[in-house]
Amino acid sequence: MDTKLDMWFTEQQTKDVRTSCRTKKILHQENTPFQSLAVIDTDQYGRVLVLDNIIQTTIMDEFVYHEMITHVALNTHAAPERVLVIGGGDGGAVREIVKHQSLEKVVHCEIDGAVVDASRKYLPEISCAMDHPKVEIVIDDGIKHVRENKGAYDVIIVDSTDPIGPAEGLFSASFYKDIFNSLKDDGIFVAQTESPFFNRDLIPRLYSDISGIFPLTRLFLAVVPTYPGGLWTFTMGSKKYDPCDTDIVRTPDLNTRYYSPEIHRTCFVLPPFVKELLGR
Amino acid sequence: MDTKLDMWFTEQQTKDVRTSCRTKKILHQENTPFQSLAVIDTDQYGRVLVLDNIIQTTIMDEFVYHEMITHVALNTHAAPERVLVIGGGDGGAVREIVKHQSLEKVVHCEIDGAVVDASRKYLPEISCAMDHPKVEIVIDDGIKHVRENKGAYDVIIVDSTDPIGPAEGLFSASFYKDIFNSLKDDGIFVAQTESPFFNRDLIPRLYSDISGIFPLTRLFLAVVPTYPGGLWTFTMGSKKYDPCDTDIVRTPDLNTRYYSPEIHRTCFVLPPFVKELLGR
Repeated sequence: MDTKLDMWFTEQQTKDVRTSCRTKKILHQENTPFQSLAVIDTDQYGRVLVLDNIIQTTIMDEFVYHEMITHVALNTHAAPERVLVIGGGDGGAVREIVKHQSLEKVVHCEIDGAVVDASRKYLPEISCAMDHPKVEIVIDDGIKHVRENKGAYDVIIVDSTDPIGPAEGLFSASFYKDIFNSLKDDGIFVAQTESPFFNRDLIPRLYSDISGIFPLTRLFLAVVPTYPGGLWTFTMGSKKYDPCDTDIVRTPDLNTRYYSPEIHRTCFVLPPFVKELLGR
Repeated sequence: MDTKLDMWFTEQQTKDVRTSCRTKKILHQENTPFQSLAVIDTDQYGRVLVLDNIIQTTIMDEFVYHEMITHVALNTHAAPERVLVIGGGDGGAVREIVKHQSLEKVVHCEIDGAVVDASRKYLPEISCAMDHPKVEIVIDDGIKHVRENKGAYDVIIVDSTDPIGPAEGLFSASFYKDIFNSLKDDGIFVAQTESPFFNRDLIPRLYSDISGIFPLTRLFLAVVPTYPGGLWTFTMGSKKYDPCDTDIVRTPDLNTRYYSPEIHRTCFVLPPFVKELLGR
């Protein structure tokens, strides 16, 4: 008789909420110098990258996050040539960035090389652009990298884990200042900034920090089902271009499943309860 | 020593996904003639109404669902006077509907009187308009009610549970035909139609059924964190008014936390993967 093991992966999303998904197989597991890393194969979400027991990306819904963290900023810029991704070791952001015609180079700065290796091996749909000729992978601390590269980038994308553990320093005003200095005079920066339902203290703090440094700050929304609460915020700091003001059909054929020129315009429309968070 | 019981309520959201929330107290539990009913007090979501072990509404995020299932349709109509709510035994839809100045009467037709009673007692923030002079509560089968009331309503709202159990008949073409006949010549109908991530077969079927009956069909989105995947669809059938075409600031002071005139316009903007579901 063939009895299947009833295996569930459980993530503690907040102190008081858990989510579990039925798991077929643990494909990979290791402790890196920075965090615990696993790739599991689940029935609902397909393969899932897990860091410190938190879902980072899944085959089912990674397209939402990776399209929205990249194309909104890149289509806002007149012609992004040099782009930096900090974090995002799975390569999904880089896969979207190389679709932009004006791109000359994307530097992918990930602190944990083990994430890159595991993603190459187990998440080829996501990591598939890592060997693209315009991609340079740098295994280093993003904070150090921006300090050492002043005025170098058109767009910087902070594709981090949650603000605990290795990514804590990526949610600080001093880091945002270094990012400002690492951008060219018309540069744009975007970061994932968590849930408006569950991170009600963090979002206003980050928004205020970024507003204190960049002439233009904008928060936008997308829905990533496997993140706590589904609704997710991204915060953009821009030196010159306004994402709400721009003719954004610059690279029309992005072959996207969530992002579109219409979504670009409407993702900045915030429900009153999110506006309130920002003191508006 | 005071040791707290570590109690968690778990919902099976799909065959392969579960969500759990830490629970302080079970406030109420009964088996009604239609379903099992519970009200629990949770740490993250506050009080939660649970039917057949599925979260129906929570104090934390009920505002999103109730505002969006009502105001989009009511502000699309030139002057809604008579409104019918089928289901929605918690009273949240009714609470939003009575905010509209043109309203003469809202009939609240719920099949299970026990849901109304429990909501009155344990969810006063949601059920607070049940005794409003314009509200008539009818404990009856919604299918029967629309058959017996032809040409009676300006707006009909189907605020149902999932399409299994008592609400199954509320997801059928024959029911939508009865709704069409129960509406006046410029009537509008809206129903909650589940998740575009997890109900990929259901949504196109309902959209096609409604398109076959109403001259105008529109799908719109909102994010309800405690529903599977967060992203939620609503489908509207309209005999005359187009929600995307209308001057919708008819009742401006709705005192809402998710709905706004801007959200009204943008909730119909669908990401490509949702458009695909509808064959567009």
